[in-house]
Amino acid sequence: MSAIKELRERFTELMRLNYINTLLGWDLQVYMPKSEGAAKGRSEQIALIEAISHKKLISNKTGELIKKAETEKNLNVIDSALLREAKRRYEKAIKIPIELVTEIAKTASLGQQAWEKARAKSDFSTFKPYLEKMIRLEREYAEKIDLGPTLYDSLVDIYEPEAKSAWITSIFKELKPKLMKILHKIESSGADKPTQEILKKYYDPDKQWNLSMEIIKKLNFDFNKGRQDKSVHPFTASVSSMDTRITTRIWDNFLPACLFGTIHECGHALYEMGFREELHDTFLADGCSLGFHESQSRLWENIIGRSKEFWSYWYPIMRKYFPGNLNNYPEDEFYRSINVVQPSFIRVEADEVTYGLHIILRFELEKELINNSDNLSISELPNIWNSKMEELLGIIPPDDAKGVLQDVHWSTGAFGYFSTYSLGNLYASQIYEDLLTKQPNLPEEIKNGNYLNLLTYLRENIHQHGRIYRPLDLLKKVTGEDLNPDYFIKYLENKFYPIYNL
Amino acid sequence: MSAIKELRERFTELMRLNYINTLLGWDLQVYMPKSEGAAKGRSEQIALIEAISHKKLISNKTGELIKKAETEKNLNVIDSALLREAKRRYEKAIKIPIELVTEIAKTASLGQQAWEKARAKSDFSTFKPYLEKMIRLEREYAEKIDLGPTLYDSLVDIYEPEAKSAWITSIFKELKPKLMKILHKIESSGADKPTQEILKKYYDPDKQWNLSMEIIKKLNFDFNKGRQDKSVHPFTASVSSMDTRITTRIWDNFLPACLFGTIHECGHALYEMGFREELHDTFLADGCSLGFHESQSRLWENIIGRSKEFWSYWYPIMRKYFPGNLNNYPEDEFYRSINVVQPSFIRVEADEVTYGLHIILRFELEKELINNSDNLSISELPNIWNSKMEELLGIIPPDDAKGVLQDVHWSTGAFGYFSTYSLGNLYASQIYEDLLTKQPNLPEEIKNGNYLNLLTYLRENIHQHGRIYRPLDLLKKVTGEDLNPDYFIKYLENKFYPIYNL
Repeated sequence: MSAIKELRERFTELMRLNYINTLLGWDLQVYMPKSEGAAKGRSEQIALIEAISHKKLISNKTGELIKKAETEKNLNVIDSALLREAKRRYEKAIKIPIELVTEIAKTASLGQQAWEKARAKSDFSTFKPYLEKMIRLEREYAEKIDLGPTLYDSLVDIYEPEAKSAWITSIFKELKPKLMKILHKIESSGADKPTQEILKKYYDPDKQWNLSMEIIKKLNFDFNKGRQDKSVHPFTASVSSMDTRITTRIWDNFLPACLFGTIHECGHALYEMGFREELHDTFLADGCSLGFHESQSRLWENIIGRSKEFWSYWYPIMRKYFPGNLNNYPEDEFYRSINVVQPSFIRVEADEVTYGLHIILRFELEKELINNSDNLSISELPNIWNSKMEELLGIIPPDDAKGVLQDVHWSTGAFGYFSTYSLGNLYASQIYEDLLTKQPNLPEEIKNGNYLNLLTYLRENIHQHGRIYRPLDLLKKVTGEDLNPDYFIKYLENKFYPIYNL
Repeated sequence: MSAIKELRERFTELMRLNYINTLLGWDLQVYMPKSEGAAKGRSEQIALIEAISHKKLISNKTGELIKKAETEKNLNVIDSALLREAKRRYEKAIKIPIELVTEIAKTASLGQQAWEKARAKSDFSTFKPYLEKMIRLEREYAEKIDLGPTLYDSLVDIYEPEAKSAWITSIFKELKPKLMKILHKIESSGADKPTQEILKKYYDPDKQWNLSMEIIKKLNFDFNKGRQDKSVHPFTASVSSMDTRITTRIWDNFLPACLFGTIHECGHALYEMGFREELHDTFLADGCSLGFHESQSRLWENIIGRSKEFWSYWYPIMRKYFPGNLNNYPEDEFYRSINVVQPSFIRVEADEVTYGLHIILRFELEKELINNSDNLSISELPNIWNSKMEELLGIIPPDDAKGVLQDVHWSTGAFGYFSTYSLGNLYASQIYEDLLTKQPNLPEEIKNGNYLNLLTYLRENIHQHGRIYRPLDLLKKVTGEDLNPDYFIKYLENKFYPIYNL
């Protein structure tokens, strides 16, 4: 057997163990009884699978196979990518002592609990020691991985492979004033601003669920290859190459939670359901990067799901679900209500314009925390957060729960993650611009509830490739260009200026 | 570290892998999309966990630890039982070549598919080659295990540890004429026989579900340590030591399916939820045997769930769920309707009296198939089945779907399994007799919907011990006696003669 084939089989086992752990985690969040005993049992099972995987990954055999495979000639594009992913995972794993992995996992678990309590009481001081410890551990991790030029680069690379923090910095530097300009223009617009009132009425949760199921069915979510359930936080989980599950949450008095949560996760799922069969059960059956994954969920949620054309088809249907609330409410006003732009404290509730500013704030702070933690006193973090909020959005959080304590990420050590959300928006708008050039009839199709050509484009150009290409290579392959944030700015201007009569 | 402690840790990992596979199987039957792709992915995951477990189990290290632990002095009762279970599993595993394990698994998978098709068309001939192959493989398996005196003993031992087929034969020899006598007496009883008509009306499935949830809550099913879902075939699955799940099925036009299915599985679950904490995550966190497990499900389903006292409490409640069907239907007639005795073709639909005869038929046949397969031509099996049905129950199946093809067991190689169902009934009635002697007030408590003393007795005497003791040792420990089938006969006579005015 060739080394690459043997390597592929070895990593197929690792991928299956990965799927198994994903199911253990899915069940934990969706159906597992909410008791300490059940949680303890499950965490031991997950730790066991992780230990078995880790041992297999770092074994000498893996290293030998990688070395041998590297000497094999004429690897095809898939095998080359497999080898690259195998090497990437192996080298990272052997660089990190298992004690550090365990210490980070333990600190993440304790840190998340401390964060939950701190946020509930809006008391940063009780979370501070956990955050300090986690930053120390993440720095240590970054030092061992050592991808340079800065420590933060090693962390960014986890989520957006081969992206450099200097590159993201330059993109965000370009984006920031342009987003602020749009926001200021909208804020200073005159009368007749849209409001969210209609979204905050009571919507029967069973009907919300049924509507969400009707929508994703129409979006070509394949129920032979997946399902939807409910959970506290919506997520997408592939539990095998042929079984991708999404979750949604339903708020009785806020329609967008379920509606756009479902469309967002459906976008992730369509990506996972579209990997070509050759990639199944390999580590290439994965998104190209977190940013690219997010580009798919946000394309469906925002560019499609919050568009005039989308609601031209769905509003009459949704009216039948909620005639009391919607029969006398004009379609155009509804479209405007789901596209309200205004500075707000909480990232996950932010609109398309301000969202990027929330991300830039986090990116700037965490880059500093990791690279120059000596310069930045953790005690000062809440104040720095608040003054950045004032600078970017013109508002100051009334407390830390609505400020520095709002996100779970840092408590679990996920430094480097946030920027992928914004990169997702940038990728999505650049891809969509290309799509519109090639399929000018698309808006008409969406008006008719026809998403097949859209999905076919995404399948052919993005989904099928899984993790074969690197994010910027794939973007160039699809759109012929490097990342250009002006597509996103143009998209925002074209969409939001008319909504605000500008 | 002492060898027994190290052994315990090793087997804790195996138990966790076992729990993980149980979750993979639970999800497969409860929530997994019904597609070939999803099924294929899942079966590969299950096979991987099995392979990892098997490798760990048969490793030299396991053997060495067992040897060392056997020399350790003063093992307590739990450690002794742990050592016994470890040795039992290890020795069985090293006796069986992995090729045979794989071959049986493959044949079981193909055999089950062939059986499903054969049963649908009532065509034994298409299933015959698979059955022949499976019998050959099971004989080979039994030869390797070699627990003697006959091949069949090695298979019985899988399900009812250390039970000998000669012992079961002698029990069933005693039981058979007594069951037949009761049946004949009931059949020749006069007018006013109960009927099942009331059970075959339409019962709203959502209300059936809600009633089943209300009942198991009252029976002290702990929803912090488990849950109920729906599946095609009801089953109980512990996915960790603190998470036991049951399933039920709902038939719109047959009330007992959900009602008694739920109580039956709840009985299994209460057993699993009652293991003492020291046994958690070990192979002793399991029923003492399949027969003992079945004794718990059948005690709750039949002895309690089909009793007059039980319905004295529940009938008024159930009437509120289904007033249309039940408001004018007398409680006593309902009690009689769920206790109709009559010969029927299908085992799983049989009443408490005829059920044992269905089992005896299968036991006699499969013992012959395994021990003397040369004497018994498989082609003759349908005819032999039918003539035994005539002998035992006085009826002849109209086709093989209602005869030899009705059960899945043989297609998957589960020879030796059937008798545990009847042993369960025998254990249950002997235990219940003991319980009544010690707690004469129990029927009164059940009339009041109070199951706490009943559960406490079962917890203290049976559940907490898990798999520490061997079935007959445990029975003697609880009741002070060896198995005596007359308790079951007496129970049947006392219950059914009044129902039939005898």
